[in-house]
Amino acid sequence: MNILRTVHAEDLEDIAIGGAILGTGGGGDPYVGKLMAQQAIRQHGPVRLVDVAALPDDALVVPVCMMGAPTVMTEKLPQGDELMNAFRQLEALLGRKIDAVLCGEAGGVNSTTPFVVAAASGLPLVDGDGMGRAYPELQMVTFTMHGVSATPMVLCDDKGNSLVLDTVSNAWTERLARAATVEMGGSALLAFYSMDGATAKKAVVRGTLSLCARLGETLRETKAAHGEPVEAIKTLLGAREIFHGRVRDIERRTVGGFARGTAQFEGVDEWKGHSFSLQFQNEFLIAHRDGEVLVTTPDLISVLDAESGNPVTADSLRYGLRLKALAFPSNPQWRTPEGIALVGPRYFGYDVDYRPFVPAA
Amino acid sequence: MNILRTVHAEDLEDIAIGGAILGTGGGGDPYVGKLMAQQAIRQHGPVRLVDVAALPDDALVVPVCMMGAPTVMTEKLPQGDELMNAFRQLEALLGRKIDAVLCGEAGGVNSTTPFVVAAASGLPLVDGDGMGRAYPELQMVTFTMHGVSATPMVLCDDKGNSLVLDTVSNAWTERLARAATVEMGGSALLAFYSMDGATAKKAVVRGTLSLCARLGETLRETKAAHGEPVEAIKTLLGAREIFHGRVRDIERRTVGGFARGTAQFEGVDEWKGHSFSLQFQNEFLIAHRDGEVLVTTPDLISVLDAESGNPVTADSLRYGLRLKALAFPSNPQWRTPEGIALVGPRYFGYDVDYRPFVPAA
Repeated sequence: MNILRTVHAEDLEDIAIGGAILGTGGGGDPYVGKLMAQQAIRQHGPVRLVDVAALPDDALVVPVCMMGAPTVMTEKLPQGDELMNAFRQLEALLGRKIDAVLCGEAGGVNSTTPFVVAAASGLPLVDGDGMGRAYPELQMVTFTMHGVSATPMVLCDDKGNSLVLDTVSNAWTERLARAATVEMGGSALLAFYSMDGATAKKAVVRGTLSLCARLGETLRETKAAHGEPVEAIKTLLGAREIFHGRVRDIERRTVGGFARGTAQFEGVDEWKGHSFSLQFQNEFLIAHRDGEVLVTTPDLISVLDAESGNPVTADSLRYGLRLKALAFPSNPQWRTPEGIALVGPRYFGYDVDYRPFVPAA
Repeated sequence: MNILRTVHAEDLEDIAIGGAILGTGGGGDPYVGKLMAQQAIRQHGPVRLVDVAALPDDALVVPVCMMGAPTVMTEKLPQGDELMNAFRQLEALLGRKIDAVLCGEAGGVNSTTPFVVAAASGLPLVDGDGMGRAYPELQMVTFTMHGVSATPMVLCDDKGNSLVLDTVSNAWTERLARAATVEMGGSALLAFYSMDGATAKKAVVRGTLSLCARLGETLRETKAAHGEPVEAIKTLLGAREIFHGRVRDIERRTVGGFARGTAQFEGVDEWKGHSFSLQFQNEFLIAHRDGEVLVTTPDLISVLDAESGNPVTADSLRYGLRLKALAFPSNPQWRTPEGIALVGPRYFGYDVDYRPFVPAA
C-alpha cells in the first residue's frame, strides 16, 4: 500500500493537540492520548499512515477507540494492552486477519488510540475517521449512515473484563456499551464497526489524521515564531472567530457516563459587553451569543486559549480563563437529513433546529 | 444415562409452584415459568430428569436462567427463543457439544427455564440447582464456592441483542450483566457457569427439581382432599410455622434491577397481638417477630396463603392478605463461612449476624 507518511513517537504531540482542536471540547485530554501512543510506537516502531483510497475493496478495516466520560479518562489511564486485547479478540471473532486500523473519532484521546494498535500490530493506519470531529455516542459515526454495524464489538476494561456485543442496531450498541462502561468505572476500550475497504472508501471522513498533524504543527510553529496561534488555526480550518471572552460560570455534572453542562462567558476587547454560552455533552454542541443561537452541532465549535491557542476541553474550563471560540462547518456527510437526525441539536435534547454555519458571514 | 423420571407438560404446574415455594418470595411468578416450559415441551417432547451422580466426570453441563426484577419479568414475557439462543451461542463458544442442562436457581421462573432448553435441545436435565432456593445475584450459587467461573456467559434479550461476557470474577459478571439487564428493559436470558460432570457432582444442590415436583404435588393433592395445605408443605419441608397474620403495610421500590422493600404483618389467631416483618431484595431475606430477628438468609423463609397454601411472592404481597410464614434450614453448603460471606445478611447490607435457624425449637 502507498504510504502517505510514517508517524514517529515525536509526531504524536502534534496529532493529539490537533485532535483536541477537532475534538470541540470533548474527546479527552490530548496529554493522555499522546502518552499512550508514544509508548506503543517507542516499543513497536513507527506507524504507516495510508489513504483510504489505497485500500483494496476486500480489505478488512477495524476502528478502535476509548469510550467514557473525559473527566474519568484523565484520572484513569488505560493500560494500553486492553486496546490490543479488544482488537485481537475481534479479529478472532471475525475469523480473518485485519488489514488496516481505522480511527473512530478525532479527539485528544481517540485520534491517538488507533496509533497504539497500529504500532503494536504493525498494520497500516487509515488517514481518516468516522466523524471529522468528536461526538459522545457510539452510533454517531458516518459509518452508521453507510449501514455499517457497530457489532460484533469487543469491549475491554483495565481489570481484565471483556464483553462481546451483538446488537440489533448501533443505538442499542451505544446503550449496552454505555451501561457496561459506567459499571466498569467510567472508561473502556473498544474494537468495532469492522468493514471492508469498499465501504470504508465511502464512509470514512478522509484525511482527518493528517489534518490533526497539520493543526498541531501549525500551532507549535506559530508559537515558536511568536506569531498569532489562534489566527493561524482559524486560517488553516477556514473557521470564524465567534467570541473572545472570560469564563464567568460553569455548570457541570456527570450523567450516565457523560460530562454535561453549560459554560457562560463575558466578552473582552472587541466583544466587551457581549455574552456567550456553550452547552456541552462531552463536546461543545451549541453556542449562543447575546441570547441568540449562533452555531449548532454538527458544525464545529472549538475553544482555544486566547494567548497560546491551545485547545481547551469542556472538562478543563475554569473560572476566569480567557478564551477564543472558533466555529467551522462539519463534514458534508453530517449536513444531510440523515446526519442531522443522528447528531443534530434535537437528538441531544435541545429545542433548536440545525442552521448551517457560514464562516464567511 | 439413568433417567430419574420423564417430565411432561402437565407436570410443570407442580414444579413451578414447588419452585415458587423454594423461591422464598423471589424467583418470579410460577405462572410465567410454567407457560414457557409447557410450550417448549408440547413443541419438542418431554424432558428426561437425571441424577447428577449419573453424569460422566467429563460431561459438559450448562445452567440457564432468566435474570431480572420479578416485577418486570411478569410483565415482559420472554420469547423462549432467547434462552436457546444463549445456550447455543455458549456451546459454539465452548467449541464442544453440551451434554446436559442444569438449573441455576429454584424459583417460580428459574425452576422451569431449564426445561425450555432441555426440551428444545433434547438433552437431559440434571435434578438439582445451584442454590436449593432463589437469590438475587448471579454469583450467589454453590458453583462459586467450588471455583466455577460464571463466564464465558452469553446474555440475550427479547429484541435480539446479545452479549458475551468474560470477567475476572463472578461478582464482576453480576455487575456487568446487571447493568446490561437493566438497560435491556429489566430482564434477560443467560447461559453460564459451564462445568464438567465431576465438578457438578460436588457443587450441585441435589434433587431440587424433584423436591419442587413433590411440593407442588403435595399442595395440589392436599387441596383436592380438603386437607391442610400449609401443614402438608410444612411437614414435607421439615419447616416451622413462624407467623400467621395479615399484611398491614408494604414499602417497595425497584432499585438497580432489584425489587427491594419491607412488609409488615399483624398477627391473627394464635399470633394475635404480635407483629412480624419481612425484608426482601427479590427474596425474603430477614424475618423479625416482635422486634427480634428470627430468621436470616441463607435459611429459607417461605410465605404461603393461609387457606390455599399457595406460595406468595414478595411482589404479589397486598394489603390485607392473610398469610402464613414457614422457615427451614438452607442447604449445608450455605451454612459455612464461605456461604455466609456470599449470601449472609451482612452481604445484603443488614446489620445482623447469621444465626442458624432450628425448626424444632
